[in-house]
Amino acid sequence: MTLSKQEMPKQSYLVESEQILHSDIKKQIMQLFSLSSSSAENIDEFIDDISDNFISAGDASSDVDLDSLAAKFCDSKVPSQPANFENYLEYLVDNVIAHSIHTASPKFIGHMTSALPSFMQPLAKLMTAMNQNSVKIETAKSLSFYERQALAMLHRQIYNFSDNFYSEHIQNSQSTLGILTSGGTTANITAMWCYRNAVLGAKDDFFGVEKEGLTAALNFYGYKGAAIIGSELMHFSFDKAADLLGIGNRGLIKIPVDSNNRMRVRSLRQAVAKCLQENLCIIAIIGIAGTTDSGGVDPLLDIAKIACEANVHFHVDAAWGGPLIFSQQHRYKLAGIEQANSVTIDGHKQLYLPMGIGMLFLREPQMAQSIEKQASYTMRKGSFDLGKRALEGSRPGMALFLHAGLNLIGSKGYEFLIDEGIRKTQYMAARICAMPEFELLAEPDTNLLIYRYIPEPLRDVVAKKQLTEIDNLFISQFNERLQKSQRQAGRTFISRTMKSTTCFSQEISIVALRAVLANPLTTEDDIDAVLNDQIQIASEISLSAYNGLKNQDSLLDCVS
Amino acid sequence: MTLSKQEMPKQSYLVESEQILHSDIKKQIMQLFSLSSSSAENIDEFIDDISDNFISAGDASSDVDLDSLAAKFCDSKVPSQPANFENYLEYLVDNVIAHSIHTASPKFIGHMTSALPSFMQPLAKLMTAMNQNSVKIETAKSLSFYERQALAMLHRQIYNFSDNFYSEHIQNSQSTLGILTSGGTTANITAMWCYRNAVLGAKDDFFGVEKEGLTAALNFYGYKGAAIIGSELMHFSFDKAADLLGIGNRGLIKIPVDSNNRMRVRSLRQAVAKCLQENLCIIAIIGIAGTTDSGGVDPLLDIAKIACEANVHFHVDAAWGGPLIFSQQHRYKLAGIEQANSVTIDGHKQLYLPMGIGMLFLREPQMAQSIEKQASYTMRKGSFDLGKRALEGSRPGMALFLHAGLNLIGSKGYEFLIDEGIRKTQYMAARICAMPEFELLAEPDTNLLIYRYIPEPLRDVVAKKQLTEIDNLFISQFNERLQKSQRQAGRTFISRTMKSTTCFSQEISIVALRAVLANPLTTEDDIDAVLNDQIQIASEISLSAYNGLKNQDSLLDCVS
Repeated sequence: MTLSKQEMPKQSYLVESEQILHSDIKKQIMQLFSLSSSSAENIDEFIDDISDNFISAGDASSDVDLDSLAAKFCDSKVPSQPANFENYLEYLVDNVIAHSIHTASPKFIGHMTSALPSFMQPLAKLMTAMNQNSVKIETAKSLSFYERQALAMLHRQIYNFSDNFYSEHIQNSQSTLGILTSGGTTANITAMWCYRNAVLGAKDDFFGVEKEGLTAALNFYGYKGAAIIGSELMHFSFDKAADLLGIGNRGLIKIPVDSNNRMRVRSLRQAVAKCLQENLCIIAIIGIAGTTDSGGVDPLLDIAKIACEANVHFHVDAAWGGPLIFSQQHRYKLAGIEQANSVTIDGHKQLYLPMGIGMLFLREPQMAQSIEKQASYTMRKGSFDLGKRALEGSRPGMALFLHAGLNLIGSKGYEFLIDEGIRKTQYMAARICAMPEFELLAEPDTNLLIYRYIPEPLRDVVAKKQLTEIDNLFISQFNERLQKSQRQAGRTFISRTMKSTTCFSQEISIVALRAVLANPLTTEDDIDAVLNDQIQIASEISLSAYNGLKNQDSLLDCVS
Repeated sequence: MTLSKQEMPKQSYLVESEQILHSDIKKQIMQLFSLSSSSAENIDEFIDDISDNFISAGDASSDVDLDSLAAKFCDSKVPSQPANFENYLEYLVDNVIAHSIHTASPKFIGHMTSALPSFMQPLAKLMTAMNQNSVKIETAKSLSFYERQALAMLHRQIYNFSDNFYSEHIQNSQSTLGILTSGGTTANITAMWCYRNAVLGAKDDFFGVEKEGLTAALNFYGYKGAAIIGSELMHFSFDKAADLLGIGNRGLIKIPVDSNNRMRVRSLRQAVAKCLQENLCIIAIIGIAGTTDSGGVDPLLDIAKIACEANVHFHVDAAWGGPLIFSQQHRYKLAGIEQANSVTIDGHKQLYLPMGIGMLFLREPQMAQSIEKQASYTMRKGSFDLGKRALEGSRPGMALFLHAGLNLIGSKGYEFLIDEGIRKTQYMAARICAMPEFELLAEPDTNLLIYRYIPEPLRDVVAKKQLTEIDNLFISQFNERLQKSQRQAGRTFISRTMKSTTCFSQEISIVALRAVLANPLTTEDDIDAVLNDQIQIASEISLSAYNGLKNQDSLLDCVS
């Protein structure tokens, strides 16, 4: 459309009408950038109404199917003229908001997304009004120091170093106690990047992996390859890290877990020995504090000891479980985290901040030097520009949410939130154990729970622990179907994952239902309602339809 | 503090007082998560006042110095009790907002951060209320399709493929027309990651670089190393990419530019030939559409031709200049971009969206398969989960801003904004040429301008083109000092960078002042005011103090 217009001969009437149009456009656009329109009261009220309605929705989502939803978003042309904001908001309400996920619903307990404290909404407005760019001091100024402070506050919660340590490093441009990222994935990748560059750094006449590349670095140091070691339940950001960093996923060594989803320490010890024997450079050993699948916490103290003995960096992925440090009752589960060289925590998970906040904390304030970069127009050496040691470049002033969260919720507030989540998880686990319809698949370490529905004919066999592999496949198929039907109906929501289990001394993979109990608005009644909804849906999955699934393809799907 | 408390013996009064405290905390926290507090009118008004005051500020920043600012943010303890929101907002106003950068000020014309359309603020509030996680359909639903649509709209602006093409791919879960990222850096890194994995992919019995690592991949394909080629003005995200991907910065081949900051095509041709001769695997050739330093646009058509002949991927970093595609008058400057295998565009630059939106557009909808990952709890094969082909994991629903921008500004609105920026840049260039105090350092391609102040005694020498290297060092010192004083005073703002220039047939590096003319609120009067402010500040830099700078150390600083 636009291109063909360019090819048209310029006729006088066309030029004239375009000039008129131009002055119209100018007026409309300048109006958009003017202050008066920002505080239009009717817009604000409309937005508040939409938001309040959305947040207070009790169900998990609408029941629209994905195909008809996709069909709403098929026009690929940018409209030529500016649209009216109110009309656009109405379009949003009908097409987008009506079919968004009610992540704040007390019955949406299947993913790590929860209700937020209400002060986050006005702060988001403020952050957008300020539109700072935290990459450099010249576009952030106070926010750079404020961000450093917020990160130091959490660093102190983890490592609890001396007052002197924090006085020295908190506002020292040469020190990096933490890096604010867009999420835990980037934080984990950044940690691995730091360690790869530190372990294969400059030495003698070798300029290090950063300059000379991975092949030259492995050659120089005499390694046959590189490895990252963690449990088989490591987050898939480590797959990304191993791929990105040139190590390759073969170099991502996955240690088996026990029945409660914790890394087997003996296997780790063997894997480390094997790497040393095979002359592989170990970039880092990962401990998980709250696996994405089931919330399990690895034996961090044991892992720390092994990493220390092998003189290898120890990273804890506490994206989920990190905030347990606030709980006097539960933080013993994280014992050993203070020995980690680095820790990932997600702000948008159990710190109850809006989406888009990950953090990497570094025990040694100089570690991030290994990834430092400069540019001629900014990020000069010795500057306070936060972007000089980061994977990302320009980024919003998300520190506003973090600093506000720490101050407006406080350590006691976070303790309450953590304790409540775990208490409710224990309630749900007890309910599941008491109900014949369900089987608990692991004792919860934190506030994730994995379980499954057992179709009636198989309940006795489960009780007798005599399920065959085929029985398990049927149960997995049933649970997959149950989870999809529940998601489609939209009244409540539970997610699903795969779990390894032993069946007649053979390792098999089964489908598990996965609950995440983090929303402070979720009550015990809500938990009961979710479980009852599943029982209801299960009763509607007719055995005939279920039997129809028993073909070779879908069985293979289940185990793949 | 917290740890020592744990070690205290539990005395009965302590337990009791903690229980009372606990119920207090519970009340406070549950109140924070309740709906009623989200729409507290006084808070909303307070936020609006703060925002309006901030946005309408005429100067660039406060004149506080960094040391006294740093001193405000030195406490590293998380407060135990939740704070009051209004008190916290007052703290924010005095300590953070008062010393933030007025990026919307018409006289802040030194970085790529501008005023935003006013509808972005209420949308930010709405986005936070919705709190979707775009990584997967189960936490985003409609937003996934809506994001795909917005990306397809810009893809179409760049590539202008047929209606059939867009019908086939826009909502096809196997196709990826674009990837929404947190910024241009991640988009550029993602592009290089895709190409490295595609070029060194699985073949015969080799599983590809993703699984087997970079060393094995280079070996298998018989390469001696890998290279990324672009101009010496490439954004430093390519330094990060070369480092991260294991290629090493030696493999980042930087082609010299001409006096107008455009890549020298002959040098590129030679570099490609040299790589082939040396048996290096060329991951990609980069063309820049709007360098960060000076807004220059590389000869994209020539580069496309060379990349095509060498059968190498061609990536265009149009983070800054991409939106020129909306301008009938200026888009010829981007000719060749439609031949790129991929294009980076930043939403938070010339699409006038809030900070935190980068995009990578892919010509071939299957290209991103080379970085696809799966996880057991989500991102299943064939799903609509956007996170399966992305560097990042969980991320906010930033598509809301992008889709709204495209619809509420429209292609004609963007055209107006682009044309205005370039028009004002030409005005500023003309003013600089007409004023004896300044020297223009390059003809602007887009809306960045580099120039410098010439101290009075040297103006004749400049006119005669007889500046020596020492003269240039003095001028650079003066301009660095001028830029720092201007930044410190805070009335107006211009940034600085380094530029190569020829001095008696020798290549030297000089300090350049750098203006960015993107804010629609900036008038010709504002531009005059900024230049006059610089003249005023220059007159205050006494020659004696200036002479004091003439020592060996600071001279070395200037050229480093």
